[in-house]
Amino acid sequence: RLVADIPAEVKAYEVIPDEKYLIKDKLIEYADDLGLDVIITTGGTGVSPRDVTPDATLEVIDKEIPGMAEVMRSESLKKTPRAMISRAVVGLRGRTLIINLPGSPKGVRENLSAILPAISHAVEKIKGDPSECAVTENEKCKFLCIPKNLVCLLLLLLHCNTWIHKPPWSFVSPPRF
Amino acid sequence: RLVADIPAEVKAYEVIPDEKYLIKDKLIEYADDLGLDVIITTGGTGVSPRDVTPDATLEVIDKEIPGMAEVMRSESLKKTPRAMISRAVVGLRGRTLIINLPGSPKGVRENLSAILPAISHAVEKIKGDPSECAVTENEKCKFLCIPKNLVCLLLLLLHCNTWIHKPPWSFVSPPRF
Amino acid sequence: RLVADIPAEVKAYEVIPDEKYLIKDKLIEYADDLGLDVIITTGGTGVSPRDVTPDATLEVIDKEIPGMAEVMRSESLKKTPRAMISRAVVGLRGRTLIINLPGSPKGVRENLSAILPAISHAVEKIKGDPSECAVTENEKCKFLCIPKNLVCLLLLLLHCNTWIHKPPWSFVSPPRF
Repeated sequence: RLVADIPAEVKAYEVIPDEKYLIKDKLIEYADDLGLDVIITTGGTGVSPRDVTPDATLEVIDKEIPGMAEVMRSESLKKTPRAMISRAVVGLRGRTLIINLPGSPKGVRENLSAILPAISHAVEKIKGDPSECAVTENEKCKFLCIPKNLVCLLLLLLHCNTWIHKPPWSFVSPPRF
Repeated sequence: RLVADIPAEVKAYEVIPDEKYLIKDKLIEYADDLGLDVIITTGGTGVSPRDVTPDATLEVIDKEIPGMAEVMRSESLKKTPRAMISRAVVGLRGRTLIINLPGSPKGVRENLSAILPAISHAVEKIKGDPSECAVTENEKCKFLCIPKNLVCLLLLLLHCNTWIHKPPWSFVSPPRF
Repeated sequence: RLVADIPAEVKAYEVIPDEKYLIKDKLIEYADDLGLDVIITTGGTGVSPRDVTPDATLEVIDKEIPGMAEVMRSESLKKTPRAMISRAVVGLRGRTLIINLPGSPKGVRENLSAILPAISHAVEKIKGDPSECAVTENEKCKFLCIPKNLVCLLLLLLHCNTWIHKPPWSFVSPPRF
């Protein structure tokens, strides 16, 4: 289940039902208690009644980053006009970056590869000013996946140093999962 | 006043002044009491003091669908840079899709044709899971127009079945009004 | 410090720290008390902990104009994927247009030139209906800059009449600063 092409290990991973209060609790726990750098959710970004991930996310973030969601939608729109109904949100809770991805493996790949070029820069900036950005060798960039419908499509736990300074993927071609 | 090219009939139609509380009341009444599937407003999406349709809409919707508004703006921007000041909102109140369109006939055509490819899919999804999506032959997709400045530019009331399964328009060329 | 290529004079200009309450107070003072037509802020639009300009702006505006922010991001994205993390907001407080620009001179140029074609139209509309739009010769379009990090990059105070009716710049090439 791990993404072999990315220097990653699982820090935390959980499958939870499509309930807004459960998603909110989990996001808050992982951001505030575990202090994760990045939380990635998959699924629940559409317009059906059970799609509540963006709504849960909006209620827990302090700052929205609309450009990252726009880029994901605009990339997906090249494939299908249905992409315009994705309500995926990207934002910050404290120093944790929360990213909503769609539920389909194809959608996850497309969306994630669209924003990958900016994630490392974002994580550096979120951590504060340049002096604060000097991450130690042991520090890790933690990715967490909160999936939908009891099927998780993405599990990422990256070593930040490796990731930020020597990205093993190309920013041109999408990473394989 | 009916759109001859689309299998449509008027379900509800009203001309109301540019007052935010009136627009809100009407949107709530048509969504909650009449249970309309889609409400389309025209006009009041700009930045002048009397333009309050998006503000009224934001106050009554549960979920915003930013991608549909983005697509409308990005389509209009191909014609004029003034399109960037449109504040049109698309969102859901319960299971009713509310779409703000601009006030000019040209703008209505451009904007509506930009999102048409996704509306049918959105309406299906909004209605719930696949089993719930099996609409009966008698069920109709109801469109409602709340126009601005006492001039209504768009009146759509579609038969959902026909519309969703046998769209009489091309997704490439815009419908004629 | 004045922008020589634009018929501008300084109406108000201030350098303030990256504190949300200070930025809010200043925006409110300049919009409500001074009645400025346009306030331009520079800096503080990113995702680092001290970047709070968009958050301050969101808390003081009545109406957001997402399209102008989208156009700025989409223009900057042509240069760098990092543009997607800009959280710059454009919106209205009463009849004052507030525009967040990034902190770098390059970013200011790129972003401002992207929305310039729509600013004059927006200011006209914000002032009300066509009859109200007849600005007198003495009326001026006031631009204000609230910079970040004690370095202001942009100072604009335009004569509205000249600006709106005889723009001295080309809408194709960006203005020089």
